Amino acid sequence: MTKFLDELPPREALVEVARDFHARGWMAGTAGNLSARADEAHFWITASGLPKGRLQESDFILIRVADAAVIERGRAELSPSAETAIHAALYELFPDTNACLHGHTVTACVATARTAAKATALRLPPLEMGKGFDVWEQRPRADLALFANHLDVARIARDVRARFKKSRPKIAALLVRDHGPTVWGTSLQQAYNRFEVLDFLLNYLARR
Amino acid sequence: MTKFLDELPPREALVEVARDFHARGWMAGTAGNLSARADEAHFWITASGLPKGRLQESDFILIRVADAAVIERGRAELSPSAETAIHAALYELFPDTNACLHGHTVTACVATARTAAKATALRLPPLEMGKGFDVWEQRPRADLALFANHLDVARIARDVRARFKKSRPKIAALLVRDHGPTVWGTSLQQAYNRFEVLDFLLNYLARR
Amino acid sequence: MTKFLDELPPREALVEVARDFHARGWMAGTAGNLSARADEAHFWITASGLPKGRLQESDFILIRVADAAVIERGRAELSPSAETAIHAALYELFPDTNACLHGHTVTACVATARTAAKATALRLPPLEMGKGFDVWEQRPRADLALFANHLDVARIARDVRARFKKSRPKIAALLVRDHGPTVWGTSLQQAYNRFEVLDFLLNYLARR
Amino acid sequence: MTKFLDELPPREALVEVARDFHARGWMAGTAGNLSARADEAHFWITASGLPKGRLQESDFILIRVADAAVIERGRAELSPSAETAIHAALYELFPDTNACLHGHTVTACVATARTAAKATALRLPPLEMGKGFDVWEQRPRADLALFANHLDVARIARDVRARFKKSRPKIAALLVRDHGPTVWGTSLQQAYNRFEVLDFLLNYLARR
Repeated sequence: MTKFLDELPPREALVEVARDFHARGWMAGTAGNLSARADEAHFWITASGLPKGRLQESDFILIRVADAAVIERGRAELSPSAETAIHAALYELFPDTNACLHGHTVTACVATARTAAKATALRLPPLEMGKGFDVWEQRPRADLALFANHLDVARIARDVRARFKKSRPKIAALLVRDHGPTVWGTSLQQAYNRFEVLDFLLNYLARR
Repeated sequence: MTKFLDELPPREALVEVARDFHARGWMAGTAGNLSARADEAHFWITASGLPKGRLQESDFILIRVADAAVIERGRAELSPSAETAIHAALYELFPDTNACLHGHTVTACVATARTAAKATALRLPPLEMGKGFDVWEQRPRADLALFANHLDVARIARDVRARFKKSRPKIAALLVRDHGPTVWGTSLQQAYNRFEVLDFLLNYLARR
Repeated sequence: MTKFLDELPPREALVEVARDFHARGWMAGTAGNLSARADEAHFWITASGLPKGRLQESDFILIRVADAAVIERGRAELSPSAETAIHAALYELFPDTNACLHGHTVTACVATARTAAKATALRLPPLEMGKGFDVWEQRPRADLALFANHLDVARIARDVRARFKKSRPKIAALLVRDHGPTVWGTSLQQAYNRFEVLDFLLNYLARR
Repeated sequence: MTKFLDELPPREALVEVARDFHARGWMAGTAGNLSARADEAHFWITASGLPKGRLQESDFILIRVADAAVIERGRAELSPSAETAIHAALYELFPDTNACLHGHTVTACVATARTAAKATALRLPPLEMGKGFDVWEQRPRADLALFANHLDVARIARDVRARFKKSRPKIAALLVRDHGPTVWGTSLQQAYNRFEVLDFLLNYLARR
């Protein structure tokens, strides 16, 4: 636990983040997906249906950014989660993104339950913690992009792509209602830090 | 913590799950029982009255599915908990069940305290997390079977047997009011994952 | 963590319990005291003013049950906490008591804040978890003895002694309002288990 | 974890506290700063922008108390956080202060959200736990100094200095609204203990 995450090989670092997030209740069951860019055109992502507290480095799949095609599997029987398409969209839209973390949190679900059903954004509270997303304003009015949940995850991915193509969000994160947050960063350490920051902000909203 | 639970010998895996659940507050005192099928006709279950964070592989009892009779004790002084009858009922009713986990959680008690006293089911919230129980619907209407608590645990076991004989529940779990959840699965890993999923859903209900 | 607590030497076991309780937030700062009977006439108790997550076996004081006098100090500079008098009262009143654990918990303070200011008992909720205190009733009406807090701890000890001399409480625990619970048992493992059980019940009251 | 914090070299001890506070959610992202006095005129403080769960002893900066100037950097690329000025003010105002811990907690933000917007103090609840701040009164009326948050942290430091110059606060801590607590002590262990104590008190206010 002493090296910064980006000093570790990507899959080794993701195994560590997965164990950490699972222990915090952010990846209950087999929920969530974590990915890190392997090179300009590819990223490694956790395979579908595995318990995230017990991953090994062979539990990842290499995905092509351009079309979300599977390029390599750590083990033959692994398959990618439907949410892989959301990761691919983010890596393609934002070339400076090198890691993308998606979890399911009770705090996020409770915070969105208190938001109007049709809202497309969740106003983050004006706490100092907001600086963790590089919001440097006295009383920031920072909005987190909010998306409707769909059984068909490909549809969520299309919604994300359509909306973020028009304008890059100020907060490098999105929230799917009744589902959970996705946070990205220029490094895995940054994405990890910001996932914590977002949970702090949502936990505040849920407890206030 | 790197191997999946079913790659470990059953009692070794149950010791690990017990320590994990205890650390989360799901087996306070000596509460709860964990079991795994040993063969078609038998299952290993934690003995009664032991602190679940400190079990050893000799702290289990081998039970016959057909009549819940004790077949083998890890140590002579061990006795089975009354709740063993509920496990036996589930293994008998659902032959594809290979593990059964029963804990006591504050979230389950708080969530049921908000349910009508005579309710026989608790509607789970329509969160993405519901997919952890293989509910693949846009806005799922998934009900968790709810049972009244009785001092005489054998009566709960009879209620469970009578109700599930008629129809297998869509959600592979049950909740005894003022008591706690029981979750089963085709593997220990699946039952473990789903216990987490159910706690997520009940925690949402308790915090909403 | 695999041996039951009473298989360890008393001070070694108490060091472990102290680290555990501290990690759960039940011994914030230097709060709380843990003790175990050394022989019929004496008990070992944690010294005053030490951080409970970092104790060593030399951080205990041997106290005489009869008058709470200090008999031996692990290190010359150690002094007993004022709350030692409460432990002494319990060991004297209940000769079958072999361990006594006192912590400060937010849940206990929140639960009592919802109780009438003059109440001398807190009705425990009728949850299955109550069996952890050997309450075997269908809908138990179990009361936890509630005491007023006083700056002068000796006065609390006198109140405890006066009340419990008249009748032994059904629940082997007491709660000092705005302060925290004290739980005792015939063994350290039992007292430890029941501290967890009580926290479960109070957490339910605080969250309900 | 067995030695008291002040028995360790200062930076080694701060690395341990940082990992501990991060694990509790008190230093999400890269939030917070921890410092310890090196000698009468200098203190070591965590560098800006680093994830606090992964610090090494080279991740600190030596600061001069008198003017908050950087005297030494563990690594050339490190820079001090703007909040260093608050630490410097406290070390200068209170020469018996040897450690100063600043974190961001959800409980502090929730507790202040329930306080009048213009309040300059937050009344701590009259719990036994208050003794952790050396408040020995029957029903203490202890106030925690409350400061407005400013984007320009230097302004907070000036406010702190101006107010505490006039009178030393009874409670060795301060709270910046929408931001988080800062706690100091005559030793690192004392500051650590009191950070826990303050969180207990604020958690009570947030949950009550």
